[in-house]
Amino acid sequence: MINRLAIIGVGLIGGSLARALRDNGGVREIVGYGRSIGTVQEAMRLGVIDRAEVSIADAALGADMVVVAVPVGSMLDVLAQLAPGLGDRAVVTDVGSVKASIVAAARPVLGAKFRNFVPGHPLAGGEKSGVQASVSDLFQGRRIILTPEPETDADAVARVRAMWHAVGAEVATMSAQVHDEIVAASSHLPHLLAYTLVDMLVRMDNHRAIFENSASGFRDFTRIASSDPAMWRDICIANGDSILPLVRQFQTDLDAVAQAVEQGDEHALFEIFARAKRVRDSLIKKN
Amino acid sequence: MINRLAIIGVGLIGGSLARALRDNGGVREIVGYGRSIGTVQEAMRLGVIDRAEVSIADAALGADMVVVAVPVGSMLDVLAQLAPGLGDRAVVTDVGSVKASIVAAARPVLGAKFRNFVPGHPLAGGEKSGVQASVSDLFQGRRIILTPEPETDADAVARVRAMWHAVGAEVATMSAQVHDEIVAASSHLPHLLAYTLVDMLVRMDNHRAIFENSASGFRDFTRIASSDPAMWRDICIANGDSILPLVRQFQTDLDAVAQAVEQGDEHALFEIFARAKRVRDSLIKKN
Repeated sequence: MINRLAIIGVGLIGGSLARALRDNGGVREIVGYGRSIGTVQEAMRLGVIDRAEVSIADAALGADMVVVAVPVGSMLDVLAQLAPGLGDRAVVTDVGSVKASIVAAARPVLGAKFRNFVPGHPLAGGEKSGVQASVSDLFQGRRIILTPEPETDADAVARVRAMWHAVGAEVATMSAQVHDEIVAASSHLPHLLAYTLVDMLVRMDNHRAIFENSASGFRDFTRIASSDPAMWRDICIANGDSILPLVRQFQTDLDAVAQAVEQGDEHALFEIFARAKRVRDSLIKKN
Repeated sequence: MINRLAIIGVGLIGGSLARALRDNGGVREIVGYGRSIGTVQEAMRLGVIDRAEVSIADAALGADMVVVAVPVGSMLDVLAQLAPGLGDRAVVTDVGSVKASIVAAARPVLGAKFRNFVPGHPLAGGEKSGVQASVSDLFQGRRIILTPEPETDADAVARVRAMWHAVGAEVATMSAQVHDEIVAASSHLPHLLAYTLVDMLVRMDNHRAIFENSASGFRDFTRIASSDPAMWRDICIANGDSILPLVRQFQTDLDAVAQAVEQGDEHALFEIFARAKRVRDSLIKKN
């Protein structure tokens, strides 16, 4: 049970976590902070938060659990403003899609309180954003990755883990570096490809006909290109080291596929397509 | 009203069309042909077809509407076997995802009967295949593209159009060349990218961790990589002329995005992502 929860950044993720914890009685009081007054007012009107503070340090004051749910590019700023308000027993966690750069930034900024910081990343969300889109079952059955450092307090990890279990999520732990490499492949590269494809089509003369004559495969394939552009700009910058080698590999592989198309190499194309289908079918069904 | 419908290729598309027409009383009798006896037996057991023939010409005999729903690579063969069985008033249509190469192949093979051939492509389907996956509402609200040639009989076009309207689809017409260019962008290139990405990840040492730690965005983005590999091999070979320039353009654009990531060019990334999101949101919602 969380006595006072502070949500810094009352958007889709922060709002959904607040709703879910409230729904199952996992929290007594929820304090919110948001950069825009309109968002904070909307969060109060929707009953997502109980009250709001206009400074991050004030929002954290007296909280036993602080969830930082802001874009990756704002994380350092927010942690710096947060630090003075943190009590000794307060646990801090975040929901950023990259971890190594956030950990590196948090260590000097949080100082002695860094041991109570549990870096986290819920594999949930989608192309919608904002507190209006928040729902209480967003984390049901989803995976949360925590990347504790050697000095991270075990009790802090346990409390963050319990919070996520309370909203129906499963929790995995790994190093920040491994996390960043894995999500570069499973999430960041796909987003880059989807954005690149849609932007390329948008600039074509016949783009209206292309969109009009598209089917559900196109809609699903490009859905992630409707994600928040500022959030994804931040992620690409913060995790470039893991993303760029994957882009290069993809370019090489796409060259090979294009060559097979050009040469009419039916065998090579079938091999690639069949292997992709076989493994995807078996691994996606397992999840 | 169709008196006798012949479905050549009783898979997802052929089977779903048969089910839909039967459900709304748009057909009196349905004759089926399939390459595999097991498929044909299953189609009869499911009530999708009334009876089966073991030769394509026999299946077409006495039919007033023949729907060829076989992979693009088998189309020429099937049309050649079909021709002797076709009556003078029989209309033939297909459901192939490419049109120019099918039209070119059909013209000499069908001879005088080519004027009763209405090339078609339903923008429906998905990663499932086979008659087991067929459903009667597959075409509800979906678009069918017809690509009649100058010599195509207007009455034949009207009858194919009426058939698709009867199962809840909307019908658009355009030239085969324009069709092939449009679907190369909205469908064929996305399939190539999805297959290439999944195959690349599959070959990575940590591919199990990548799939395990993926979310709904990845599942949707890669869904089309679970499509039938033989079908997509055929499409890539048949429409290579339209697909390859798009692959080259994509490579160029992806290079630019990668460069922006490498240089930490926040402005460029935001511009690309925001433009893609804005246009996709407005054009996908309209559909």
